[in-house]
Formats: sequence, C-alpha cells, structure tokens
Amino acid sequence: MDPSLLQDFIPVAGLLAVAFAIYLARDVLSRDTGTKEMMEVSATINEGAVAFIKRQYLTIGGLALVGSVIITVIISLLETKSVADTSHVGIDIGIRTGGAFLIGAACSMACGIIGMLVSVKANVRVASAARRSLVEAVQVAMRGGAVSGFLVVALSLLGVWTIFAINGGLDTANGTKDAPFLIVGYGFGASFVALFAQLGGGIYTKAADVGSDLVGKVEAGIPEDDPRNAGVIADLVGDNVGDCAGRGADLFESTAAENIGAMILGVAMYTLALNAGWSNPTAWIFFPLVVRAFGLVSTIVAMFFIRGSETENPMNILNRGYWVTTILSAGALALVTNAMMNTGTQTGPNGIPTWVFFFGCGIVGLATSIAFVYITQYYTAGSYRPVREIAEASKTGPATNIISGMAVGFETTLVTALTIGIALLASNWLGSQAGLVDATGKNIGGIFGTAVATMGMLMTTAYVLAMDTFGPITDNAGGIAEFSRAEAGARDITDRLDAVGNTTKALTKGYAIASASLAAFLLFSAYIDKVNLILGNQIKAGVPNVHLMTSVNLADVNVFVAALIAAMLVYFFSSLAIRAVGTTAQAIIVEVRRQFREIPGIMDYTGRPDYARVVDITTRAALREMMLPGAVAVATPIAVGLLLGYQAVAGMLMVGTIAGVLLATVLNNGGGAWDNAKKYIESGHLLDENGQALGKKSFAHQAAVVGDTVGDPFKDTAGPSLHVLVKLLATITLVMAPLFIR
Amino acid sequence: MDPSLLQDFIPVAGLLAVAFAIYLARDVLSRDTGTKEMMEVSATINEGAVAFIKRQYLTIGGLALVGSVIITVIISLLETKSVADTSHVGIDIGIRTGGAFLIGAACSMACGIIGMLVSVKANVRVASAARRSLVEAVQVAMRGGAVSGFLVVALSLLGVWTIFAINGGLDTANGTKDAPFLIVGYGFGASFVALFAQLGGGIYTKAADVGSDLVGKVEAGIPEDDPRNAGVIADLVGDNVGDCAGRGADLFESTAAENIGAMILGVAMYTLALNAGWSNPTAWIFFPLVVRAFGLVSTIVAMFFIRGSETENPMNILNRGYWVTTILSAGALALVTNAMMNTGTQTGPNGIPTWVFFFGCGIVGLATSIAFVYITQYYTAGSYRPVREIAEASKTGPATNIISGMAVGFETTLVTALTIGIALLASNWLGSQAGLVDATGKNIGGIFGTAVATMGMLMTTAYVLAMDTFGPITDNAGGIAEFSRAEAGARDITDRLDAVGNTTKALTKGYAIASASLAAFLLFSAYIDKVNLILGNQIKAGVPNVHLMTSVNLADVNVFVAALIAAMLVYFFSSLAIRAVGTTAQAIIVEVRRQFREIPGIMDYTGRPDYARVVDITTRAALREMMLPGAVAVATPIAVGLLLGYQAVAGMLMVGTIAGVLLATVLNNGGGAWDNAKKYIESGHLLDENGQALGKKSFAHQAAVVGDTVGDPFKDTAGPSLHVLVKLLATITLVMAPLFIR
Repeated sequence: MDPSLLQDFIPVAGLLAVAFAIYLARDVLSRDTGTKEMMEVSATINEGAVAFIKRQYLTIGGLALVGSVIITVIISLLETKSVADTSHVGIDIGIRTGGAFLIGAACSMACGIIGMLVSVKANVRVASAARRSLVEAVQVAMRGGAVSGFLVVALSLLGVWTIFAINGGLDTANGTKDAPFLIVGYGFGASFVALFAQLGGGIYTKAADVGSDLVGKVEAGIPEDDPRNAGVIADLVGDNVGDCAGRGADLFESTAAENIGAMILGVAMYTLALNAGWSNPTAWIFFPLVVRAFGLVSTIVAMFFIRGSETENPMNILNRGYWVTTILSAGALALVTNAMMNTGTQTGPNGIPTWVFFFGCGIVGLATSIAFVYITQYYTAGSYRPVREIAEASKTGPATNIISGMAVGFETTLVTALTIGIALLASNWLGSQAGLVDATGKNIGGIFGTAVATMGMLMTTAYVLAMDTFGPITDNAGGIAEFSRAEAGARDITDRLDAVGNTTKALTKGYAIASASLAAFLLFSAYIDKVNLILGNQIKAGVPNVHLMTSVNLADVNVFVAALIAAMLVYFFSSLAIRAVGTTAQAIIVEVRRQFREIPGIMDYTGRPDYARVVDITTRAALREMMLPGAVAVATPIAVGLLLGYQAVAGMLMVGTIAGVLLATVLNNGGGAWDNAKKYIESGHLLDENGQALGKKSFAHQAAVVGDTVGDPFKDTAGPSLHVLVKLLATITLVMAPLFIR
Repeated sequence: MDPSLLQDFIPVAGLLAVAFAIYLARDVLSRDTGTKEMMEVSATINEGAVAFIKRQYLTIGGLALVGSVIITVIISLLETKSVADTSHVGIDIGIRTGGAFLIGAACSMACGIIGMLVSVKANVRVASAARRSLVEAVQVAMRGGAVSGFLVVALSLLGVWTIFAINGGLDTANGTKDAPFLIVGYGFGASFVALFAQLGGGIYTKAADVGSDLVGKVEAGIPEDDPRNAGVIADLVGDNVGDCAGRGADLFESTAAENIGAMILGVAMYTLALNAGWSNPTAWIFFPLVVRAFGLVSTIVAMFFIRGSETENPMNILNRGYWVTTILSAGALALVTNAMMNTGTQTGPNGIPTWVFFFGCGIVGLATSIAFVYITQYYTAGSYRPVREIAEASKTGPATNIISGMAVGFETTLVTALTIGIALLASNWLGSQAGLVDATGKNIGGIFGTAVATMGMLMTTAYVLAMDTFGPITDNAGGIAEFSRAEAGARDITDRLDAVGNTTKALTKGYAIASASLAAFLLFSAYIDKVNLILGNQIKAGVPNVHLMTSVNLADVNVFVAALIAAMLVYFFSSLAIRAVGTTAQAIIVEVRRQFREIPGIMDYTGRPDYARVVDITTRAALREMMLPGAVAVATPIAVGLLLGYQAVAGMLMVGTIAGVLLATVLNNGGGAWDNAKKYIESGHLLDENGQALGKKSFAHQAAVVGDTVGDPFKDTAGPSLHVLVKLLATITLVMAPLFIR
C-alpha cells in the first residue's frame, strides 16, 4: 500500500473520532435525567465543578501565558545559530516554540474541560438508567467516558498533526525532517497544563474525599455521600475535577509528548532511508501518527461490542471492548508496519523483512498493556492474596493494616519493573535485529524498536481512557443515588458499577505508568538526538573542545548528583502533594464539624448544610496548594541543567523516570489495595475465628477505613501527579536543551 | 613526619582501643546490679537474648560457611589467568577470597555478640544507677555503649590490617599494591553477616515491640513494659538483639568495606606516585587505615569529656564528647594528610600543597557528619515543625497522622540529597584541584577526594556507635525500671535517657546513610578499577574485542534495565522485611491474647505470664522470616550481572545506592518523627482549641500510637537493613566481578 495514502488518513481518522464523540455526547444527553432530587443534586455538583474548573483553568491559563512568554524569550535569546538544531534560529524558533507551547497548553485545557463537562452531564443519567437496567447504565457511563476518550486522543492527534503541518512537516521534500524538532514546545505546553490540572484536581478531590469521610463516616457515623454531610457535594465535585479533568490532561500529554519523541527518532531512520535510497523515507517520521490514527478507528469499532446481559459482571462487558480494540489494533499494526517500513532489498537475519521486527515491537507494546491490566487486577482486586492479606491484618487494628498495605505497595514494584524491563529488552532486541545501521556504523534499530512498542501500546489509549472516565461517572452516579435517596435497586446497580470503576481507574494508572516507562527510552533518546544535533552543528562551525554526547556516564560526579536529585525530587514532590491534601482536608473537617454544631437540624434532615461554603474552601485551598509542587517540578530540571550541564540532565531524566515510575506504582497500587480491602470487609468476606463475617462497623472495618483514607492521596493525588512529573521532565529538557549546552 | 611511623601506629591504636574497651567493660561490670526484682528481670532478658543470638548466629554461621565454600569454588574456577586482577589466580585466589570472606564473617559475628552481651549487662546497672544520679546513669550507659563502639571499630581496623598483612600488604616493595584486591572477600563476608544479623534482629525487635504494644497498650490499656504483658520480655530482648547486635554488625561492615574500597583507589595514587618518583608511594594505600587509627585515639580521649551536671539535658553531655571527637579528628587529619600525601614539588593552583586539598576533603566528610546530626534532629525532635505537624494531624485521627508522617518522611529526602550532593561535588572538586593526573591524562584526584571525605567521616564512628548503643541500653534500663516497679525518681531519669536514646539512635542512622552515600562513589570506583584491571590484562593477553570500561552508560538498555531493577530491589526487599515484622507481630498478638484469656490472675498480678513462650515464638519466626529478604539481596546482583553484564552491574550499584539511601531516609526519619510525635503528645505539648493539653489516652494520642507502631518496622527493620543492602551490593559486585566479565 502507498504510505502517503496512510499519511492522508491521519486527519480523517482524527475528524472521524471527533464526529463519533459528538454522536456519543448527543446520545448521552438525550437520556432522561431522573427524579427531581437527582436533577437537583446534579445541578449542585455541576455548579461546584464549573466554578472550580473556571477558577483553576484561569489560573493555569495565566501560568501558561507567562510560561510561553518566558520560553519565547529564552529560546529566542539562546537558540542562536551556534546552538540551533535546525535552520530556524533566534526569534523565529523562539516564537515557534512559545507558540507551540501555548497551543499544546490550550488543547490540553480544552480536553480537561470537555471531559469534565460531559462527565457531569452523564452521571445523573447513569443514576437514572440504573433504576431500570444494568446494561443501560453501563452503556451510558461508558459512552460518557468515551466522549472524553475520543476527544482527548483525537485532539492530541489532530493537534500534533496540525502544528507539524504548520511547521512545514507535510513538505516531504524539505520540511518533514526538521518539523519534529520545531514542535517540541507543544509537548511541553501539554505537560505543563497536565501537571497543574492533575495536581489541583487531585488535591481537590482527595481533600474533599478524606475530609468528608473522616468527619462523616468515622466521626458522625453517617454513610458515605449522606446529604447531612456538608462536605459531600465537594466530594462529588472532586470526582469530576480530579479524576476526569486531571486524567484527561495527563493522557493528552502522554500521547502528544511520546508521539513527538517518536517522530524525532524517526528522523534518524529517515536519514538512513534517504542515504540507502529506500522509497518513502519520510514514512518513518509519519509512522507514529498513522499508528495512532488506526488505534482510534479500532476503538470506534470496539464501542459497538460493549453489550452483555443483566446478570453479567459489568467488568466482562468492558473487557470485551478492550479485547476487540487490542485485536483490531494488532491487525492494523501489521498493515501499517508492512506498508510504511520499506527497506528495499535489505532484510534482517534469515531474510525476514524489516517490518516484521517492528511489527513484533508493536505487539510487545500491546502485550505490555495487557500484562499491566492483569497485574493491577491481581494487586488491587479483592479476589487475590494482596487485598486479603490487608483485610486480615485489619483484624489487629489500623497500624497493622497500614503496615500490611505499605508492604503490598512496595511489593508491586517487583512485577512492574520486571515487566517493563522485559518489554524494553525485547523491543530493543527485536529492533536491533532489523539490520538498520547508520552512517557511523551504529545500530539504531533498537531504540526505534522501543519507540514502536510505545506507539503500539498507545493505540488503545482512547478505550482505556473511556474505561477510566467510566470510574468517576459511576462513582458520581452512586453518590447521586445515595444523596437523592433513590430506590435500593438503583443503588445496588450503581454500587456494582462503582466497584468496577475502581478497578478500571486502577488499570488506567497501571497503563499510564507502563507507557511512561516504555516512553522513557524514546524521550531520552530524542533528547540525546537533539543535543547531538546542536553539538554537531557546533563542531561543524569549528567551536573548539566540543564532542558528541555518546553516553550518559553515571560514574561522572555531576551525573550521579543529578540522578540523586532526580530520585529525591519524586519523593519531595509527592510529599508536597500529600501534605497539600492533608492541609486542605483538615480545613474541611473543621468546617463540617462547625456546621454539625452550629446549624440546627442537620442530623434529622430538617436543616440544610451549607454545601457551597465547603466547595469554596476546598477550591481556594486546592488552587493555593498546587502552586508549590508545580513550581518545584518545573524549576528543578532547569536548575540542574544550568548548574550541572546537559549530560547531568540526561541522567536526571533517566533516574527520575525510574524513581517516579516505581514510587507511583507503590502509591497507586498500595492505595488501590487499601480501598478494596475495605470493600472486601464491607461485603462480608472477612471472617473471624468463629467463621462469622466481620462486616461494616466492626473493629477490622474501622481499621480498614483508616487504610483507605491514607491511600486516597497516595493513589489519586501524588501517584497520578508523578506520571505527569516524569513526562514533564522529558518535555522540559527537550525544549530547554539549548539552555544547558552553553 | 615519616609516614611509615604512622603506618606502624595502626595496630597500636587498634590494640589500645581494645584495651580501653576492656577497661570500660570492667568498669561497667563492677557497678551494682540493683534490687532483687531488677536482677531477676535482667536475668530473664539475658536468657532470652542469649538464646536468640545463639540460634541466630548458628544459622548465620552456617550460611557463611556455605557462602565461603561457594565463593572459593566460583573464584577458583573463574578467576583464571585471563580474568585475574593480580598475579594470584585459580585456587590460590579462590582460597584467599573464600578465607577472607570467612574471617570477615567471623569478625562481624564477634562484634555483634560482644556488643549484645555487654549491653545486656549494662542495662540493669543503668537502671540501678538511675536510682541515685542522672550523670552516673549517663556515664554507665555511655561506657556500656562505648565497649561496643570501640570493639567494633578496633576489630574492623585490626581485621583489615591483619588480612592485608597476611596477603603481603606490608611488603611495600612488592605486595602493597596487590593486597587490597586480594582482601575484598573480607568486606563481602562482613556485609553478608551484617545483612542477616540486621534483618533477623530487626524483625525480632520490631515484631516484639509492635506485637506487645498493640495487645498491651492499645487493647488491654496497660502501660508499656508492664509485667502483665506476656510479650514484654521479648520486647526487651529485642532491643538488645536488634539495635545492639544488628547495628554493631552494620557499622563493622561499613568501616571495613569502605576502608578496603579506599585502599583500592589508593593503588591508582600509588602508581602515579611511583611513576612521578615521589617518596613513600605506598603511603597512599595505607592512608585509610592510618586515618581510622587516629579516629579511634581521638574517641578514646573524648570519652573523658563525658561529664556534666544533674540538671543538664543529657543530650548536651553526649554532644560534648561528640564535638571533642570531631575537633581532635580534624587535627589528626591535618597531621596525617600532611605527612602521608607527599607529592614532592608538585602542587595545586597557586602553589597550595596537594595535602591541603585532601585535608579539605576530610573536613568535608566531618562536616557532612555534623550536618546529618542536625538534620536528623530537626526532622525527628519534638521541638521543630515536622514532629509538631504530625502531632497536630493526630487530632483528626490515625489516618491524618499517617498521611502527615509519610509526607514528613518523603520531605526529609530533600536536605539529605542536597547535603550528600554538595559533599560529593565539594570533595570531588577539591580532590580534582590537587593536580593528580595519571598516565592516560585522566585527573584521578577527584574520586580519591570523595574517598578521603568518606574516611574523614568514618573517624568518629566509634563515638557515634557508642551513642547509638546508649539508646537500647537506656531503653532497656527504662523497661527494667518499669517492669521491676522501681521508685518514680528512677523511672523519671530512665525516661529522660530513653528520649535522648531515641535521638541518638536516629542520628546514627543518618550517619550510616550519609557514609553509605559518600562511600558509593568510592566503592563504585573501586569496582571500575577492578574491572579495568581484568580487562586490561585481557587486552595485554591479546583477547580480541575487549575495551576498557570508561563509562557506565545509562543510555544503554541493559544498564537502564539494571538500574530499574536496582530501584525496584530496595522496595521489594523492604516489603519483605516489613511484611516479616507484620507476620511475626500477629503471631505474638494472638499468643498474648490467649494468655490474657487462659492464664488466670494475670491482670491482678497474681498469675505469671509465660514470657518464654513468646520469646520462643518470636525467635523462630524472626529467623524464618529473615531468609527470603536475605536471599533476594544476595541473589539479585549476581543474577543481573550474569544476565546483563558488568556494565549493567555498575549501573545497578549506582542507582541501587541512590534508591536505597533515599528510601532508608524516608523510612528512618518518618519512623523517628512518628515516634517522637507520640512522645510530644505524651508530654502534654499538644493543646486543643481551648488550650488544654491532649495527653495520654486522648483521641490524638491514640492516633499517634498508630503512627508510632507503623513507624517501628520502617525505622528499625527495613531502614537499617537497607543500609546493609546498599553496601552488600558494593562488596558482592567487587568480589564477583570476574563472574560478570566472561
């Protein structure tokens, strides 16, 4: 097949996905919105969420504007001819980078806002559907989630493609090979927004959750999401602003940044193909975009397989769609690698064509994704050893519950690291077998193999993100059902969906971590390519004492110290994020206690708590508290680069990724396991020595609630923010490289 | 001064320290042993401790024997002429290495046993002295601790010196430059024993502590160390076997391994000095031993400054001695660097003599030690923000207490990493200014500078270890006073000493971490030197395609994956250690509950609990549980080396050190802060909104007890075991290097 035909398919697939998202949104909005009570509470949630998002995105937008001006100035001043990686220098490249940053930031914000708005509209409709049918409720929730999923991935694809086109990338004769370097600002803009969106939303949602649970469930002894609790609306708002808006921004930037990094690696393949005289050398640069376009189409098809029976486990219904997406993606991968990786007569060993090896790399990526789905389930679902172990430990109180949960969290790094290690080694080995050797005699197929694996993994992003957003939508639907005191049948269904939503949220985090680790190599190699392009230009210009960067030497003291600081950064950043939740939660507790005390009649439903005040307190605190960790994350790599140089930054990037991925694993899985240990006890699975179930309100359950509360900021604030931090390290260094080479 | 005179001083100082330790031990043993009740409980503790140590060291001894045989066989088979680093090959080097391993293991075991025995004798005498005088109690406890301190450091010094002499190190004409490579087995043997001693002791002590606290203080509502609690003797035994025996073995191996590593780096300086024709080139190899000898003498002098008044804060009395040790060490450092670092007419910039730069490096080491003393105090003492923050968070329950403590633990990595980073950069820079350039034009002064800084830091080890052992001795004395229901005045004094002991134990951990990080560079460079010696011999022998190892390239996939596995290892290892404590503690809880239920009259003191049964259960469980983490720690670096090669092992070593040091910091300081937040509340410093103290048994106090319990296995099992793990990685790779090069 002609590769240029496939290249033309990129915007088509993107627009198709947008159209499909609009179709899904209209479908969701056409559903009935339930009882009057449901509509009321839904409107209150909507109000709080919109108020928060407005203030948050105004703040972030302001920061992004300032950021883009600073970047424009820095790059204009620094990226002079002597340190430029392309022929664009000075103000030209400064404005291109700053502009790309701003567009990336704007797209990321748009994703966050749209995802949140749809989710707020979908939750009440799911609550209403739950009064009638499980399958209908699943479909509404999943379609609501898919609106986010498709829009995020499509906007990321169209955004990268458009800015690539603006920078001359479609001019295959001249522009394609330079354009990837000109658009790195886009990824940085996306990470920048994602960082603050995830931090602010994560702090908000967990402070509200922890605060209202502690003061409601633990102190006052009333159920979760009970309308007498003044913090409960803030909690429901939090699900939308944290889990929907935050994760949307996170995965938007993942796909964008990793896509651009893979295109930069494609430039080396392009040069090779050009020199060897293979046809369509630019196909290597377009490849990441095309693969993702086919991933989107596979996901659209898969949406029609989300069906099942009323008695089925809802997770099976969702899994069906996931497997369809994966299988179609694998087929598409074969088509795309076969069409685009033309190496003429050159083959790997035994005459196996080059594309077969890279097809294998893509399959490694898809397999890694599947592996993480099962690993996460094992560690966070109630049917396996880890969660049971925590539940057992709860019998001797909160201390042993916490100790046991930490042990489980730490333990999860084992399979995570081994899986990532095997995926990296396998894709690198497959790629290196393809026989691609550059002009200096270096085999460059291995690194490109890891990039192809990452792209393969990202094919299913839209589906995974849809499953993820399913989580907060059903969580909210359950909250609305409880709050509006809906009939028991509806609450049973929303409870079942909520439990599945917890699993899908955990899966998405595993997926995000795995893709960040696979991408580490790709982004890191893109950084080295960019540095060497600059150093190479300096060497050509006759600057003395300049050598290409051939290794990142850990035995160099500067690199070692940078690595130490990177590993520290992930702890310190998490500390700030966790503390922010604690501080904000305590403010909520104090306020809700005051309302219980001072507003008469709350407990017998005759007095109405002042929900808005708690929402307001939480909003202000969350936005204030997100500034410090955000600033630390942005400033540290720049400071290290300025003080210790460009090689040290590379070390920081690598070790920061390792440390960040592992700590995020600990926090996410530990938190998920605590959560489900509590649910395990609540469903009566934990038995005492006489075989009696230790259910709700037992000593063990109280201990498990402590663990669940501790896990909240771990798994929903610090952990997901670490994903973004890791990728921010990559995009910031990619953009700021000229600053470190002076 | 003639350097050879200083070299002769090594065994003299070692023997002097042993003699002084014997004098101190006799002094302690001559003190009165208190009331009949005190003697009784002390005898029971002694019995349990000896029983545990006997079983533990029989197990460890067996493992060490097997280990030495395996090492002898592996090295004999593998270190053939083509991969040997010296002229000793085959069975010769195999037996040397295996023998050194066994001697190192034996010395380490001796240190652990002696330290424990003295501590068990000292505690009852401190309890008795506390009935009369604070200063006397401090003196007895500190002298008891100093017996351990001096013996550990002196045995390490004499052991390295003896085995160095046996391997021809005193033959300065031929043997000195080879001997450091022949004795690496000694360090490995010491780490091997330290690992199991720290793990077994750490699991024992914290399982007993957590178990008996939960079932006694929390459930039954009786005070800590109350005789009605069947777990209390096991708890008191634990202080001795975990804190004394474990830490003794830990610091024994630190000093031994880092000393040998520094001597290996000294060989490069020796070669340089020989080629340049400077006098006494072997002085560079002897330097680490001489510096430590002077450190010992400084500490002996300082012991006479441990005096003060009855009303003084006991910490001040101990600090006085620490500062005397530091100041005398600084003076000795000037003397030794001046005498031993003779570079003829060669100087650094501006004519500053070479030795001045290395004197500066040593001062950096001493300063790092002081910095860690204050950092640890800030983060774990009740007078500063972090502990207060945790105490405040306890007002809203155990969940916020845990969240806040984790945030503090994570936060402590900031100053830790910055201090270590600055120390490394400073000592490396100072060393690199000294103008020492080897035959290939490489400046080798920087790395040696970091080694000198490490040696400077280790000068105060004996004093720090004495302060550390002061901790468990006073902890035990308090337990004996409480258990024997001694008069209130005595208990007041032991409580005050116990609080100081908590601080000194935390300080020692900070010290151990800082020295491990500073030493990372040294041990790592020693590994590279050894690998290059082997590769160099292969190149000389004409083996094709062999290159010297010039960098540890993180951009290499194998190195990156090894680094990922290293960072994972520290989590997984900690997970196993923490889980072991949880498992063992639950067994204790079940048993103590059974005794409360089934033995009549325990609560009104008419029935006697079956202490021995709890001791026995704990012993068996702890020894069983130490095997898996120990095996994982030993097997992982070997597996990585075999699968991914010698460069990957170097990456594993570096990143494992970074990850291990930071996680240990989190666990140690988080645990210490939780502990002292509880004490802060107990002393009535936490006030409610009306200004009333929230003391013991308040809601906040109960929450703080949960945090304290969670912190126990963090700070006393996993954290200290990580120190040993980090150093084991270094010694194991140093010994096994030939295995990875094939």
